[in-house]
Amino acid sequence: MIIELITIGDEIISGHTVDTNSALIARKLLDIGFWVTYKSAVGDDPKRMEEVIYQALKRADIVIATGGLGPTDDDITKRVIVKVFRRNLVFHEEVLEDIKKRYEARGIKMPSINQNQALLPQGAMFLPNRLGSAVGIVIAEGNRIFAALPGVPREAEIMVSEQLIPYLEANLRKEHIRVIKLRTTGIIESALAEKVKSLPRLPENLHLAYLPWYGGVDLRIMSFGQTKEMATGPAENFAKQLRQVAGKYIYGENEDTLEGVIGSLLRERHQKLATAESCTAGLLAAKITDIPGSSDYFERGVVAYSNQSKMELLGVTANLLEEFGAVSQEVADAMASGVREKAGVDYGVSITGVAGPGGGTTEKPVGTVFIATSSESGIRGRKLQLGPDREMNRKRSVFAALELLRRTILGIE
Amino acid sequence: MIIELITIGDEIISGHTVDTNSALIARKLLDIGFWVTYKSAVGDDPKRMEEVIYQALKRADIVIATGGLGPTDDDITKRVIVKVFRRNLVFHEEVLEDIKKRYEARGIKMPSINQNQALLPQGAMFLPNRLGSAVGIVIAEGNRIFAALPGVPREAEIMVSEQLIPYLEANLRKEHIRVIKLRTTGIIESALAEKVKSLPRLPENLHLAYLPWYGGVDLRIMSFGQTKEMATGPAENFAKQLRQVAGKYIYGENEDTLEGVIGSLLRERHQKLATAESCTAGLLAAKITDIPGSSDYFERGVVAYSNQSKMELLGVTANLLEEFGAVSQEVADAMASGVREKAGVDYGVSITGVAGPGGGTTEKPVGTVFIATSSESGIRGRKLQLGPDREMNRKRSVFAALELLRRTILGIE
Repeated sequence: MIIELITIGDEIISGHTVDTNSALIARKLLDIGFWVTYKSAVGDDPKRMEEVIYQALKRADIVIATGGLGPTDDDITKRVIVKVFRRNLVFHEEVLEDIKKRYEARGIKMPSINQNQALLPQGAMFLPNRLGSAVGIVIAEGNRIFAALPGVPREAEIMVSEQLIPYLEANLRKEHIRVIKLRTTGIIESALAEKVKSLPRLPENLHLAYLPWYGGVDLRIMSFGQTKEMATGPAENFAKQLRQVAGKYIYGENEDTLEGVIGSLLRERHQKLATAESCTAGLLAAKITDIPGSSDYFERGVVAYSNQSKMELLGVTANLLEEFGAVSQEVADAMASGVREKAGVDYGVSITGVAGPGGGTTEKPVGTVFIATSSESGIRGRKLQLGPDREMNRKRSVFAALELLRRTILGIE
Repeated sequence: MIIELITIGDEIISGHTVDTNSALIARKLLDIGFWVTYKSAVGDDPKRMEEVIYQALKRADIVIATGGLGPTDDDITKRVIVKVFRRNLVFHEEVLEDIKKRYEARGIKMPSINQNQALLPQGAMFLPNRLGSAVGIVIAEGNRIFAALPGVPREAEIMVSEQLIPYLEANLRKEHIRVIKLRTTGIIESALAEKVKSLPRLPENLHLAYLPWYGGVDLRIMSFGQTKEMATGPAENFAKQLRQVAGKYIYGENEDTLEGVIGSLLRERHQKLATAESCTAGLLAAKITDIPGSSDYFERGVVAYSNQSKMELLGVTANLLEEFGAVSQEVADAMASGVREKAGVDYGVSITGVAGPGGGTTEKPVGTVFIATSSESGIRGRKLQLGPDREMNRKRSVFAALELLRRTILGIE
């Protein structure tokens, strides 16, 4: 089964918008055993769009396009669809009423330009949109399925999950698949690869991918088979072997995140946490609270950007700041224990550093970051020497602080 | 000039990784007047990859691929390149030495698997990589330019900026272009479109795009011409007309961000700022401090997740919390004035709300958020009624609080 995703729009082609839709749709398809083969993107140009859609229909069994269904002049996907499929656009009164109601609910009169969103290709199936005014379109012709979805990511996401995926599952036979993702940190890709080389040769129909990102390297094992068992056995067996050779680097599996793993640990233990940040300025607290219900274990966060606030909110002394400087292990330690004490919680976590691009010195160049945790069993600190990039330094500092916290909670290393 | 970007890798095709490289490269190309026409993505499958690269070389003048240059078995881009271009891989001693040194500098012995990164296509030009071990490759053949860059985003970004862009500028004639982006908030896309319809018809060679995102709608004006003047005049003239009909919704232009605009305003006025957040838990502080040098005007942030911390760190009274609840305009107001007072700054900004998915009530459903600013001239508050999505609610709350702050600083509305 060949699947192609097409992302439509000048904003994608020009790079103004990063295409998150095709990644999301690919992940959802993979969950039900459909592996995307091609992705394409094209701008709001009717000739090129026609060419790209035409080619996709030639080489793929399922084609899913997103974008270009809005009300404005640059939204031309429907016009191209009817040309490719040699159909007409038909006016749908009930769709118009629906759009009108949506605007009324927000207390806005529907702009007349939205009328054209009720024009839809003849003989297509429509996917209602519960967040916006662009209706999704599915055309099944011969052995091909073509779908056009709105470009707004949340609208596309909900339409895929609630409507397109059930439709595809109901209408298409599929190969069984088992995906296991092992998430590692603290080991580089090539060192992991050497560990894999020490294992017996990969079985047929099993596919291993190294997926590096700033926090570590994910290992994705995919195994295919005619039955569920034929797909599952080899994947689980190989995951077991990997856990044996690389277990100490694995912090989670599949959809696990470091902040989620920490949340579960704290919840199990009925323990609480507070953060004290300087250079990351709230990113650590924000990451921890990405998890719904994190208020059960996250008590407070302090973003102590000025020295004054480090003293007032965390009890860091003027002496310490003067002697060692705000970016030092000593101050990181004091921040972690200060926030732990003041919040009256089990763990304090701190980050202080030079995120850059300015503020570096010979002794403490840009990328110098100190992190610490404070707990009943004392203080753990670590120095990071990161790179020149502000954004990346902030993200990597947050990840490293979370990993230090995980180890502190588990009492490892 | 037809340009195609190809993103290579199973992690992209499967949606594990969102493709940010192609957006970044497209933006950098647009800055020098090159408009990308096609984007494609393909997995680590030699047959498909060959097919996609072959097709790109057939329809485009410049083809830029990213990904698949790493040391592991699934990195096969080079093998496909030499097949497509009918060349051999040649071993480069100096490249190997370079990679070895890179590992030595990090105190790690080079894994033997990295040796194959010194095998490079015959007759190609190489782009050194100052962050990683994958060397970039450029092959100019006939009228076509083909480039293969590493997939790691920062490596690709630096290689494009420092090497590929100067190479393309030096080697290719180009059309002149003028891009102006007007950033609006507080008005929906179709209402903007109706304002545009009230203007004289768009001139030839001028292209207007509506680029909606969660913070508002950007209007991108692009105008092309044989000379710089022919490109510049129509774009600037049209931007002027747009400013006349939609000026009050425009908070910035081109690369301006709301947090950047606010930073400049505070810097000009020698004023300072502190934040108090509940449901956004540090995202507001993190966004403000995305701006390098923001320590000049950002004093502190408080993430008051628990009621206890709202009282201790912000002086919100128990009475107020009991009478109105933590999610209320009254508490938002008290948080903003509390943090302003305690930090001794000019502006306090606060956010409290129900981000979801849990925590909603009939009276205050998920998506109910209160924001406030406190300044010399008093308190301004606003209630937001957002949607069901936690992440989106947090992001939109931050954006709305920043916009309220901008208006507070400027004394508008």
